[in-house]
Amino acid sequence: MKNQRMPLLVVGSVAFDALETPFGKVPRTLGGAATYFSVAASFFTHVQLVGVVGDDFSKRDAGIFRGRRIDIRGLERAAGKTFFWAGRYTDDMNDRVTLVTDLNVFAAFNPQLPVTYRRTPYIFLANIHPDLQRSVLQQVERRPRLVALDTMNYWIERTPAELRETLKHTQVLMINDTETRQLATERNLLRAARRIFAMGPHTLVIKRGEHGALMVHDKWMFAVPGYPLEQVQDPTGAGDSFAGGFMGYLAGSGRVNGATLRRAMVYGSVLGSFAVERFGLDRLRTLARREIEARARRFWQLTRFSL
Amino acid sequence: MKNQRMPLLVVGSVAFDALETPFGKVPRTLGGAATYFSVAASFFTHVQLVGVVGDDFSKRDAGIFRGRRIDIRGLERAAGKTFFWAGRYTDDMNDRVTLVTDLNVFAAFNPQLPVTYRRTPYIFLANIHPDLQRSVLQQVERRPRLVALDTMNYWIERTPAELRETLKHTQVLMINDTETRQLATERNLLRAARRIFAMGPHTLVIKRGEHGALMVHDKWMFAVPGYPLEQVQDPTGAGDSFAGGFMGYLAGSGRVNGATLRRAMVYGSVLGSFAVERFGLDRLRTLARREIEARARRFWQLTRFSL
Repeated sequence: MKNQRMPLLVVGSVAFDALETPFGKVPRTLGGAATYFSVAASFFTHVQLVGVVGDDFSKRDAGIFRGRRIDIRGLERAAGKTFFWAGRYTDDMNDRVTLVTDLNVFAAFNPQLPVTYRRTPYIFLANIHPDLQRSVLQQVERRPRLVALDTMNYWIERTPAELRETLKHTQVLMINDTETRQLATERNLLRAARRIFAMGPHTLVIKRGEHGALMVHDKWMFAVPGYPLEQVQDPTGAGDSFAGGFMGYLAGSGRVNGATLRRAMVYGSVLGSFAVERFGLDRLRTLARREIEARARRFWQLTRFSL
Repeated sequence: MKNQRMPLLVVGSVAFDALETPFGKVPRTLGGAATYFSVAASFFTHVQLVGVVGDDFSKRDAGIFRGRRIDIRGLERAAGKTFFWAGRYTDDMNDRVTLVTDLNVFAAFNPQLPVTYRRTPYIFLANIHPDLQRSVLQQVERRPRLVALDTMNYWIERTPAELRETLKHTQVLMINDTETRQLATERNLLRAARRIFAMGPHTLVIKRGEHGALMVHDKWMFAVPGYPLEQVQDPTGAGDSFAGGFMGYLAGSGRVNGATLRRAMVYGSVLGSFAVERFGLDRLRTLARREIEARARRFWQLTRFSL
């Protein structure tokens, strides 16, 4: 049986970002988890985006989605301003300070799935309120093949019960080290993973920024190092681009098994590594599929050895 | 031509350590860079140790070297006390505070190579004054095949000229991220590596603790992730055990090329990962070669993927 490319649904933020890193300042550029995710995933499969923008979101802003396999019928337009985030990165790019978070139209966001999205087998729930994440799953008319979820300390601390409920319907959890430890209330990552498996997911993907990513599965583990880059201009969107490459590859391959999950980790790392090379979406905008394949091979060279 | 196992010389500290981690306290246990290094390397080849101990160093203490391929003719016994170090690790094991450093007999250490050590082709200069490191090289009667060096912020800051001089005679530099950036006065690790290559070494091994290790070579790179462990009791000696596994494997294989350097990174990671499982040298003491091979295969499983 030939594997079919499957569509991929994402719900999350579409935003304008003001960014400040040691390499420069950008007062307003398109961002948001669902944006980075969609662009990254669209290299591999058809993406269906669910999100909300304000009336300041222009045709030109929407240009990022055109000419790509991104369906924006689920991108609602509401009266008011688009979600705005401003942040500054420290010298080593490993810490960031949030300067402004204006939720704007995102505050009343209530994701609605267009009819054509309701039988989509691959779903990514980007970092939003766990009740909204779950409401997306409730609108799905066929049991999805794979649900992956991102979250953050804010929801782990403030909506633990809601998050636990949503995790019951999630197979892949994609978070960072700190969030893993916090969610599991356990310092050791392997023991933390087992606690998280008891909550629902069978796979934990721990994102570690410049140190790569670790996948912990019930029966096995897989680690990808960070790709050593000569130039890191802006880490914004790295995690969401990673998630987009990861889920995009899986949906595009139409198969979830040990081999495709490992390859998904590599493609996730490839997309994340490209995303940080320029400000905002600038690098992903011009990225070509052959560059993705070339960097995937570089990952192979970076990690291969024989015993 | 069959490759011959080559002997390996190490110069560095032999010490008593007082250790405090979230898992317990040990008031006095054998430690020191040259000790961890020798024990780790002795699984792969014959090791010649150069160091100094005081008259408080008992026959029982020397037991760690017996029954292993470790030659201690170069371990000088001086009047006074052995180097003593006391340290405490933070909750996440990533930071440590030095509580006591009593150099004792180490203060007047002047490494002397026994005649039988002077034609040894593989040399590891553990973290000591760069002038002492160089004095070892000056006593060598045949150009060594490979010289590797460890150093730290203390020498980078206080003896930069002496360190630069010693680096001219070094092929492999093994330090951490922070030391790399500090030595090269460059934040980006790849650009830092190029500056370091201009100082002498052709290979830089960046040790990253729980995040693994990165090797940067003139023409290629190789990364090994940290091995996810359920139990980390004491990180002391991890870097020196890594270096011992790395250099031990290389000397034992008798060959320095792309394949053996990659494998050396894996064996270094294996030895480092075992070292931290118990306090001090406790885990390496009972370690068997078949456990080393089994974990090397686990590293392979942890990192393998196909495109």
